[in-house]
Amino acid sequence: MKIALAQLNYHIGNFEGNVSKMLQATKAAKAQKADIIVFGELATCGYPPRDFLEFDDFIKQAQKAINKLAKAAKGIAIVVGSPSTNPVPEGKDLYNSAYFLADGKIKQLQHKALLPTYDVFDEYRYFEPAKEFNVVNYKGKKIALTVCEDIWDLPWGKDGAGIKNPLYTVCPLAELKKQNPDFVLNLSASPFNFKHSKERIKVVKDNVKRFGMPMFYVNHVGAQTELLFDGGSLVVSPNGKVYDEMPYFEECIKTYDLAKVNAGKQKQEQAKDKMTLIHDALVMGVRDYFGKLGFRRAILGLSGGIDSAVTAVIAARALGADNVRCVLMPSQFSSDHSVNDARTLAQNLGTQYDIIPIQSVYESYMKLLEPHFFGTQFNVTEENIQARIRGMLVMSMSNKFGNILLNTSNKSEMAVGYGTLYGDMCGGLSVIGDLYKTEVFELARYMNKDGEVIPENTITKPPSAELRPNQKDSDSLPDYDILDEILFQYIENRRGPKEIIKMGFEEKLVRRVLRLVNINEFKRHQTAPVLRVSAKAFGMGRRMPIVGKYLS
Amino acid sequence: MKIALAQLNYHIGNFEGNVSKMLQATKAAKAQKADIIVFGELATCGYPPRDFLEFDDFIKQAQKAINKLAKAAKGIAIVVGSPSTNPVPEGKDLYNSAYFLADGKIKQLQHKALLPTYDVFDEYRYFEPAKEFNVVNYKGKKIALTVCEDIWDLPWGKDGAGIKNPLYTVCPLAELKKQNPDFVLNLSASPFNFKHSKERIKVVKDNVKRFGMPMFYVNHVGAQTELLFDGGSLVVSPNGKVYDEMPYFEECIKTYDLAKVNAGKQKQEQAKDKMTLIHDALVMGVRDYFGKLGFRRAILGLSGGIDSAVTAVIAARALGADNVRCVLMPSQFSSDHSVNDARTLAQNLGTQYDIIPIQSVYESYMKLLEPHFFGTQFNVTEENIQARIRGMLVMSMSNKFGNILLNTSNKSEMAVGYGTLYGDMCGGLSVIGDLYKTEVFELARYMNKDGEVIPENTITKPPSAELRPNQKDSDSLPDYDILDEILFQYIENRRGPKEIIKMGFEEKLVRRVLRLVNINEFKRHQTAPVLRVSAKAFGMGRRMPIVGKYLS
Repeated sequence: MKIALAQLNYHIGNFEGNVSKMLQATKAAKAQKADIIVFGELATCGYPPRDFLEFDDFIKQAQKAINKLAKAAKGIAIVVGSPSTNPVPEGKDLYNSAYFLADGKIKQLQHKALLPTYDVFDEYRYFEPAKEFNVVNYKGKKIALTVCEDIWDLPWGKDGAGIKNPLYTVCPLAELKKQNPDFVLNLSASPFNFKHSKERIKVVKDNVKRFGMPMFYVNHVGAQTELLFDGGSLVVSPNGKVYDEMPYFEECIKTYDLAKVNAGKQKQEQAKDKMTLIHDALVMGVRDYFGKLGFRRAILGLSGGIDSAVTAVIAARALGADNVRCVLMPSQFSSDHSVNDARTLAQNLGTQYDIIPIQSVYESYMKLLEPHFFGTQFNVTEENIQARIRGMLVMSMSNKFGNILLNTSNKSEMAVGYGTLYGDMCGGLSVIGDLYKTEVFELARYMNKDGEVIPENTITKPPSAELRPNQKDSDSLPDYDILDEILFQYIENRRGPKEIIKMGFEEKLVRRVLRLVNINEFKRHQTAPVLRVSAKAFGMGRRMPIVGKYLS
Repeated sequence: MKIALAQLNYHIGNFEGNVSKMLQATKAAKAQKADIIVFGELATCGYPPRDFLEFDDFIKQAQKAINKLAKAAKGIAIVVGSPSTNPVPEGKDLYNSAYFLADGKIKQLQHKALLPTYDVFDEYRYFEPAKEFNVVNYKGKKIALTVCEDIWDLPWGKDGAGIKNPLYTVCPLAELKKQNPDFVLNLSASPFNFKHSKERIKVVKDNVKRFGMPMFYVNHVGAQTELLFDGGSLVVSPNGKVYDEMPYFEECIKTYDLAKVNAGKQKQEQAKDKMTLIHDALVMGVRDYFGKLGFRRAILGLSGGIDSAVTAVIAARALGADNVRCVLMPSQFSSDHSVNDARTLAQNLGTQYDIIPIQSVYESYMKLLEPHFFGTQFNVTEENIQARIRGMLVMSMSNKFGNILLNTSNKSEMAVGYGTLYGDMCGGLSVIGDLYKTEVFELARYMNKDGEVIPENTITKPPSAELRPNQKDSDSLPDYDILDEILFQYIENRRGPKEIIKMGFEEKLVRRVLRLVNINEFKRHQTAPVLRVSAKAFGMGRRMPIVGKYLS
């Protein structure tokens, strides 16, 4: 038996586009003499469809897509994820299902049982969990269908590998195993983070070892706003070794012979360097954001600092230098090197750049506000005015010429609120908002590994917002090495103040940082979606009260 | 037996404040000779605590709060909602529990079984559902404990009353009934919408009639950012009639004699006029947002139009006129009546107002951008610049003087994207963002019912953004009567294009409106939390993809 896996880039709600892509893949798989072709989870409608699932019209369109695919399932079986309606009145209206299509019709459905409802996932918001498990009989083989999270239970609990603290009280593969299947198909839509590919390989291997069956694991590839799907679809032989792993960050269709997979022969696993993964993920994230929205051109403010530099490099690599416009907006507080470094970067990249000094507009604001500000001192208000003038200038260019503004905030400053709402926090997409400042430096060095793209001075000079004379980030914030570690413990590891202090950090500092994170929730609430590369990014995966009094 | 109900305003994460408030209430209940005092759902930590529940430190603090309350449970039993930890390794780590505290210790827990995970609710994100149900034996009575949603099943399904389409497959009261309880306590945190109080009364009555037991239903009161809790706690006699209903939008502690409740005597139900409810809810929402954040003073831009007028009235009633500062920012496109109407309103309310004309800054921007905009025409870019200058001016005043900026956008314009991001969409809190334009008019008339507060001209003149000469909303948008009805069918009722067209609306218009709603998701993503008064508000209760291609 030959099994084709199709690792594709879907578009949420674009039923026509998704079906046409799957029909093409089916044709290719037939040419490769495949008996079965397998697509990803909720492939008809894209993942995550979110509250569109509450629209009957949307569900009907998914059903139509399934009917079209069923018609094409002649001489080949198609396994594809799509929502299905719950036939009984009790419980949620929908299931998240794997459809088995053969002989021109819907042959069987297996619903997803384990519904991730944590971090970025909301599946129990929409779906009823499966209570029945049945293998599919096809061409003399018994096939176990599972959907994504269905294989992420035992022994993989929320505390990590090997600790027996499963998030669910059911184990779908243990149920299916009772019917002695020959192999497992898993239809996934498993979002990327830079540690995830290792976890994924371990989970698939662990399941194969535990249940003694080969597994074909199909993932999505491509970006859906903040969520990045890296592909890396897997075939694991019954001996628990990886038979094949598909490439990362690109579409792929490939056919496997079950007998050969069963025989087992280990493939070299892909090297997965953190910065390579993050770099490629962000490039894909920007490219798909623009591509799927139907935009081509980006704009961003270039300050001479490292955040905007790294963002510009990603943008140029994702969209082409011709499609990126940089705007340098010096003020009376900008140092010479800022403009020079920014200009050098734009020239290195080959992007268009404009220089628009903000002093005249700043003075015109100050004059207008003078009677109202009479007797007050220069403070954060005037700093914010500069940042907002810049935000407004790039937004004006964006509106006039149809470029999307890229946000250049990093995770450290978003965490502690070191940024101006409606100023440097503007933008349609936050490119590096899930990278701590120390990681931004790492990425900059990675970008320069084959020769200087980002001017060395941008990397080595002390970070500064340059909103008042001789300002440095270190005037207001602790060293980024320390800040980022405290933030990581609080945000990623969800440790409380006592635990973090016990790790050796100064109590006053810890309390100040945690307080800053919590009181700045209102700012993060109003920022762009953040391309997610860590296990805990700001945005849909971290839901915090704005008004509260915990550690604040 | 005497039962005290405490309808209190909690503060998320403010364990000390919440406990001290509950201890005081317990003292008052003792003075009223109560045998039991009942508080709301998750009262120790406030509702909704959201992802703070993932912090062990937060859960420990809730546990400490319970221990303090248990110590005070002498001579009186305390029933209070708080998270508890799941003792078995399988499943989620927490339960959403009702604690029964008596004789100075924790006597019994009943976990919540029905975990709302829809609209603004995320409970299955955190909690394992109860599988066991046990009544509490206390002073010779058997007491059934339920938490909020536990009573919102049969016959109340997601399609409304009377339709047998329950969202859950378990019915907690049916389980508890097997042990013949004498009465039911329900600990709720049930967010307000203007139709909700009627539903609530019906659900409590339906349960009482079905199971033949009196019910004591305790709700929260007060605002938690966007979520408003209206109180209206209920006592329903076994005959299915309302014995008592607590006031709306204020704290209340009251003791009931079970024998008298059982005897039954109907109380006149409160009149619940839509605009009265909305008005009072919004006033409470603004007051609590400021109070709980520790702020006193608001600022807002006053255009002479109806949205900012209604927002200013709410602000003045919530915070006092002395704490509200209005800023009038006319441009060359502003009509005389705009400034006059705005000034009259500020004078009627007695708030401070400043007039800051924006033309000089506008000209300075245009001069700076001239070389870049050379050869282009005045378009939406220049309109946005005006809106953004205004946003920036009020933000500057906000930063300088410590006032929070109130956003004045309405639901209709938020829906179709008729507003400028970082301009008039600025602000820390959206006050009327859950009111369609037609409802804003209704509310304005309601505000004027006892004499003119909002100038009549503000209500009767055609709405205009005044960003170009002689502009009117109706140049770009359909009549609000029609627009709002289409939006309501799409947003609240989740009808698709075909269904809405079938209702008699023009196909081209319907498709255009739905497309506008979907493509403007990116703008709504970056706006302030919206005080929620409808069953489907923008914000945490409506989660949509930004990049997608459905109806767009």
